[in-house]
Amino acid sequence: MKDSMNILVTLDSNYILPLKVMLKSMFYNNKNENFNIYLMHSSITDEEIKDLEEYIARDGHKLEVVYLDDEYFKDAPTLLHYTRAMYYRLLAFKFLPQDMDRILYLDPDTLVINPLRELYETDLTGYLYAAAYHDLIAVKEINRIRLMPYEIDAYYNSGILLMNLDLQRQAIDEKEIFEFVEKNHRKLIMPDQDILNCLYSKQIKTLDEKLYNYDARYYRYYKFMDDEWDMDRVIRATVIIHFCGKKKPWTKDYSGRFHALYKHYEKMALWD
Amino acid sequence: MKDSMNILVTLDSNYILPLKVMLKSMFYNNKNENFNIYLMHSSITDEEIKDLEEYIARDGHKLEVVYLDDEYFKDAPTLLHYTRAMYYRLLAFKFLPQDMDRILYLDPDTLVINPLRELYETDLTGYLYAAAYHDLIAVKEINRIRLMPYEIDAYYNSGILLMNLDLQRQAIDEKEIFEFVEKNHRKLIMPDQDILNCLYSKQIKTLDEKLYNYDARYYRYYKFMDDEWDMDRVIRATVIIHFCGKKKPWTKDYSGRFHALYKHYEKMALWD
Repeated sequence: MKDSMNILVTLDSNYILPLKVMLKSMFYNNKNENFNIYLMHSSITDEEIKDLEEYIARDGHKLEVVYLDDEYFKDAPTLLHYTRAMYYRLLAFKFLPQDMDRILYLDPDTLVINPLRELYETDLTGYLYAAAYHDLIAVKEINRIRLMPYEIDAYYNSGILLMNLDLQRQAIDEKEIFEFVEKNHRKLIMPDQDILNCLYSKQIKTLDEKLYNYDARYYRYYKFMDDEWDMDRVIRATVIIHFCGKKKPWTKDYSGRFHALYKHYEKMALWD
Repeated sequence: MKDSMNILVTLDSNYILPLKVMLKSMFYNNKNENFNIYLMHSSITDEEIKDLEEYIARDGHKLEVVYLDDEYFKDAPTLLHYTRAMYYRLLAFKFLPQDMDRILYLDPDTLVINPLRELYETDLTGYLYAAAYHDLIAVKEINRIRLMPYEIDAYYNSGILLMNLDLQRQAIDEKEIFEFVEKNHRKLIMPDQDILNCLYSKQIKTLDEKLYNYDARYYRYYKFMDDEWDMDRVIRATVIIHFCGKKKPWTKDYSGRFHALYKHYEKMALWD
């Protein structure tokens, strides 16, 4: 029997529906796996937790709740437009079981459409994380300039993060993170992602974005860059589709290549 | 226990892959049903039949093969660009078990994404068929003019046809069909559909196209006509999506709203 896989999610009540859709797609496309879903939160109600627990149990998996009192980060600097939840994924290693060696963090605006095992078992020796960056020249350049003097060769997306918890416990110092935020709060746009890139980018193993962080907005771009990456290939090979950007597929005005597929999983999540 | 549902398909070897995709979508979204799939053909190989039989049995359903020798229609008129297969669905009642009262004909360029039971049990008293027409003014007008003096109020699509076999055995005369084809062969574009509309359109019960013959090309049109028909509604309510037109979702150059969803079912059909 294979080890179960640890999945980390951090969210508030607004994201429970997308979380269920993401989880359903993951369970459906990983039928021979067992998942332990770690939910790190400060505001989800007991009722919502219970519902989620049952939802996950129905597919044979487990929910583990890590409640973070607002007290915990009370000395940490906050930003105008971000809550302390921005620290959750970066400091998760402190709150997860101390004998856990790895966990896969997943944003709830994703679909898992193929088996995760290969990603999960990525060799992380010497790396704090494995992550993908979106290789659009414009995006890279903007972030490189914005975050100078920090050297950003690639601006990693923090929506899908495989974590080497053992190494993080040794190498990541929360004080360093808090200091960084205090010093740079004016330039931070996506704070957790900015922190990840400015402080740890040299210790991130690069994942193939088309496999593990496929930006749903860029179908045409990926296909233009490599004609092999047509819809057939995406559906067969891509493991995680990421609905980046402001428009989300569970909202009314959305429109995009993967809309019907998203709604299909949403229906499974709500009805099955 | 519910009666099993009879499904009719007529195709040649080129359409076996799309047929499998259509069947997989139907099985997946009708988990509590039993299907008897009647395949009417003249050219599919024994090996292909065997493969299809196993494929269908894997989901617990049954394949029944109705082989039609070319001899059978040897006196029937043919058309330059159509084979005798154009008669199969119209004259199916002659070759199916004589005690069968109804069957649902489905084109292989469809997906069945919701339960079929309600469609299947449509009251057909007094009607030969139930079918939908695509309510675009341009299409209706072109066909009305093209097929004059036959009176065509609605030009029904013959890709999804619920058949009242009892009444057909009494009311449909193959000679009438052959005579019609001889007399009108110059104006026939889609012969089986033209025959259906010219000879039987008064005896067709109209189905809601958005539920039972949703033309995958017209998402924007349907939504424009009725804002309720967004993607959410389609995925939850539409039973049969029909990939009408020349561009098919299993070919390389296809692009469309339901492309990812089609490829999803194609993957299920080929891999699961």
